[in-house]
Amino acid sequence: MCKVAESKRTKIKALLTGEQVDVNVRVKGWVRTKRGNKNVSFIALNDGSCLANLQIVADPNNISEDILKRITTGACISAEGQLVASQGAGQKVELNAETIEVLGEADPETYPLQPKRHSLEFLREIAHLRPRSNTFGAIMRVRHAMIFAVHKFFHDKGFVNVHTPIITGSDAEGAGEMFRVTTMDLANPPKDEEGNIDFKQDFFGKETNLTVSGQLEAELGAMALGEVYTFGPTFRAENSNTTRHLAEFWMIEPEVAFADLEDNMDLAEEFLKFLAKYALDNCREDLEFLKERALQEEKNLPADKKNELNLIERLEFVANNDFQRLTYTEAIDILKNSKPNKKGRFQYKIEEWGADLQSEHERFLVEKHFKKPVILTDYPAKIKAFYMRLNEDEKTVAAMDILFPGIGEIVGGSQREERYEVLVEKVKAMGIPEEHVWWYLDTRKFGTAPHAGFGLGFERLILFVTGMTNIRDVIPFPRTPGTAEF
Amino acid sequence: MCKVAESKRTKIKALLTGEQVDVNVRVKGWVRTKRGNKNVSFIALNDGSCLANLQIVADPNNISEDILKRITTGACISAEGQLVASQGAGQKVELNAETIEVLGEADPETYPLQPKRHSLEFLREIAHLRPRSNTFGAIMRVRHAMIFAVHKFFHDKGFVNVHTPIITGSDAEGAGEMFRVTTMDLANPPKDEEGNIDFKQDFFGKETNLTVSGQLEAELGAMALGEVYTFGPTFRAENSNTTRHLAEFWMIEPEVAFADLEDNMDLAEEFLKFLAKYALDNCREDLEFLKERALQEEKNLPADKKNELNLIERLEFVANNDFQRLTYTEAIDILKNSKPNKKGRFQYKIEEWGADLQSEHERFLVEKHFKKPVILTDYPAKIKAFYMRLNEDEKTVAAMDILFPGIGEIVGGSQREERYEVLVEKVKAMGIPEEHVWWYLDTRKFGTAPHAGFGLGFERLILFVTGMTNIRDVIPFPRTPGTAEF
Repeated sequence: MCKVAESKRTKIKALLTGEQVDVNVRVKGWVRTKRGNKNVSFIALNDGSCLANLQIVADPNNISEDILKRITTGACISAEGQLVASQGAGQKVELNAETIEVLGEADPETYPLQPKRHSLEFLREIAHLRPRSNTFGAIMRVRHAMIFAVHKFFHDKGFVNVHTPIITGSDAEGAGEMFRVTTMDLANPPKDEEGNIDFKQDFFGKETNLTVSGQLEAELGAMALGEVYTFGPTFRAENSNTTRHLAEFWMIEPEVAFADLEDNMDLAEEFLKFLAKYALDNCREDLEFLKERALQEEKNLPADKKNELNLIERLEFVANNDFQRLTYTEAIDILKNSKPNKKGRFQYKIEEWGADLQSEHERFLVEKHFKKPVILTDYPAKIKAFYMRLNEDEKTVAAMDILFPGIGEIVGGSQREERYEVLVEKVKAMGIPEEHVWWYLDTRKFGTAPHAGFGLGFERLILFVTGMTNIRDVIPFPRTPGTAEF
Repeated sequence: MCKVAESKRTKIKALLTGEQVDVNVRVKGWVRTKRGNKNVSFIALNDGSCLANLQIVADPNNISEDILKRITTGACISAEGQLVASQGAGQKVELNAETIEVLGEADPETYPLQPKRHSLEFLREIAHLRPRSNTFGAIMRVRHAMIFAVHKFFHDKGFVNVHTPIITGSDAEGAGEMFRVTTMDLANPPKDEEGNIDFKQDFFGKETNLTVSGQLEAELGAMALGEVYTFGPTFRAENSNTTRHLAEFWMIEPEVAFADLEDNMDLAEEFLKFLAKYALDNCREDLEFLKERALQEEKNLPADKKNELNLIERLEFVANNDFQRLTYTEAIDILKNSKPNKKGRFQYKIEEWGADLQSEHERFLVEKHFKKPVILTDYPAKIKAFYMRLNEDEKTVAAMDILFPGIGEIVGGSQREERYEVLVEKVKAMGIPEEHVWWYLDTRKFGTAPHAGFGLGFERLILFVTGMTNIRDVIPFPRTPGTAEF
């Protein structure tokens, strides 16, 4: 058997947050910088356990010149020695190296992640290395904390996590924009007698796509288990190259039996507040760094493009303030009478009830008018999906969208249409073949119940929590039109 | 705004595990059975929060005959009344209904889930309703508990959960058996000048598939963050209709920098013991039910097919006993000299070192020879993947498989080849185009470090924890050749 790691390491986070000094320890990690002179070298070592580096003091009397030469940015080393109180500013402890082993060199001529300011665009090209940077290390740790917080929130409430299918034979959200999944030979696909592609001969015996949402299947779960949630990847084959869209992204979709729209809003608001607070309580070091980073980025922006609150303040604001709730109809009134509408400053002028709200309108409501998260409810039925519950006015549905400053729509949800006849009518009207959704209709036929749920786009959440502005920077390996590297 | 659920329910689990009696409560759920006579009806109500039903006592003086008639198996009701100590056996409390509202009926003529023994095959056809059965309710709750336990285990150790990509442009495990992802018109795909399919015009500008493993990307994470894990769906387009294979399944893949094979085995063993103990500590009611269910199923099996230990005992055994560790070479010796090998009872006779172990050999080692979980290590290099670390003997690799009784391989892992030259050599030998894995090779070029990891097939774990025997019964909506319903 092969044995390489002859002695265990201690994580740098444990050393920096612990109380121990004057003990012998071993650390392993990647060199961020090395500076110094011929009498002493200072190595900043990071092992990913936290943002901060451990300073390693290397005295040429202990560490050979040959070893020191090989210690460059990006190299991986194992260092052992005495952990002592630090004389320098900025750190509590440092390591006086007694031995250093170079586990892996990083040629300074070719290693792409040098200690200088790289553009985010460049870092995307080296997404396999970018978690070694301060910014992406922080984002990855915050993203993890939010994953855990999502599970903790629902688990503690007694929800059941349901893994809804990724490959799906139904296309219930309607029309296009899905990725096809197939094992057919594209150059020579099987054809039926009429010369059409014969999907009966495909792997699943029919046309299959990547899911756009686990909601319909989550509803099946809720109609048996009461409270469920999904947390999985979802896909959109939209050719949109924006800072807010990915072809592959993660979504959280709770679904609750016996809940109405108000319960749904309460749950979503409590959830988002919990997440903001969890980040503040558990990711302080990373958030402080990301806050400063964002302030630097904003420095050169015109005053009206700068955030009024910094990252930490924005998270605190969400955690501690109630969201503004109003109906679509109320929102239309506000927008119609707003200055930008009257002065023709909206690209799409709000003329009448029924108009679909554009991002500019949402931003006005959230960022200018209310200056806080907004929950819009009761949208016109005809601009929303078939499964949303028709209100008594018969022209609006019990839908809700939560709009966040700087992010736009972060949550979309609704009470679901639980009345069999109403739902069948809508399915017909939208042209959805009943044989695609017979199982969904079944839950209305057998023991139906009022229920509601919502979807949270996980990367949108991470944008908000990290203060990053491009969604490609908050997922490890972004998939967008033309890009599926790594 | 529409308001349906006029008053809040209490979950049945809270009532059955709480201490309160003689209080007014409201419950909502699905009727499992109704029995009684013209003087009193007993309704068994389940809301998915736990296995047990709440008994609702309906006196015709309070509840009209018309309502009672509509209360049949599968109907959804809201019942309100006094929670009282139960006179009957089998339950601590029951509900004396003062009012009952029928939220959704279930026509007894057509509702498929009647209170009788349904076959598992039939229940798969109604996978949208089967979580309303005792067996599948229990499985779903146990599955959830295991999801949470996975995250808790790694989170508490400081691992970072990394969402590795689902759509991937690389095919690093080598050849076939992948699902293609495309937005091209299959009837008329774009062709290049030579008449070949022009993948440059596909959504991602190249051929893309569904991932078979997040390992390679997880390694990138470990080489920056130290300790990471994935938990996501993976796909195999294998045309295998067995009780142990799915086309879409979930996998957990931890990856640890500075770990060798022994660290890897220690982590995997600790992980599996933690999961078994978590299930025992948190899912007792469901496990007791599943234990009895399995005993019933085994009743008609011949003695040698019955489990020596029942479900609870098997979980306790795993939680409390060390796994047997031995090398492939040692295993071959045992197998060569075993009775079934000598008597020609193996389908594949073990003749010499280098043979790939078949399921029958693994089962002999685990179920007959050692009678405990087994970790086999140091397999011949030529039967294992390119990324496994070559041992000093240059003919074996630092691989490990964990074999469980009744399940077979539940974990596969290895120390990874961290030496750039050795890895490049292997990539070439296996015919993997370097341009597909340049980013993977980069981690060996820049700051490489010993590291190791493994993959746990989540559904295999759930088979073990629930005692179910067909993998289609431990995932909500199974995808297998010819099946992608719901």
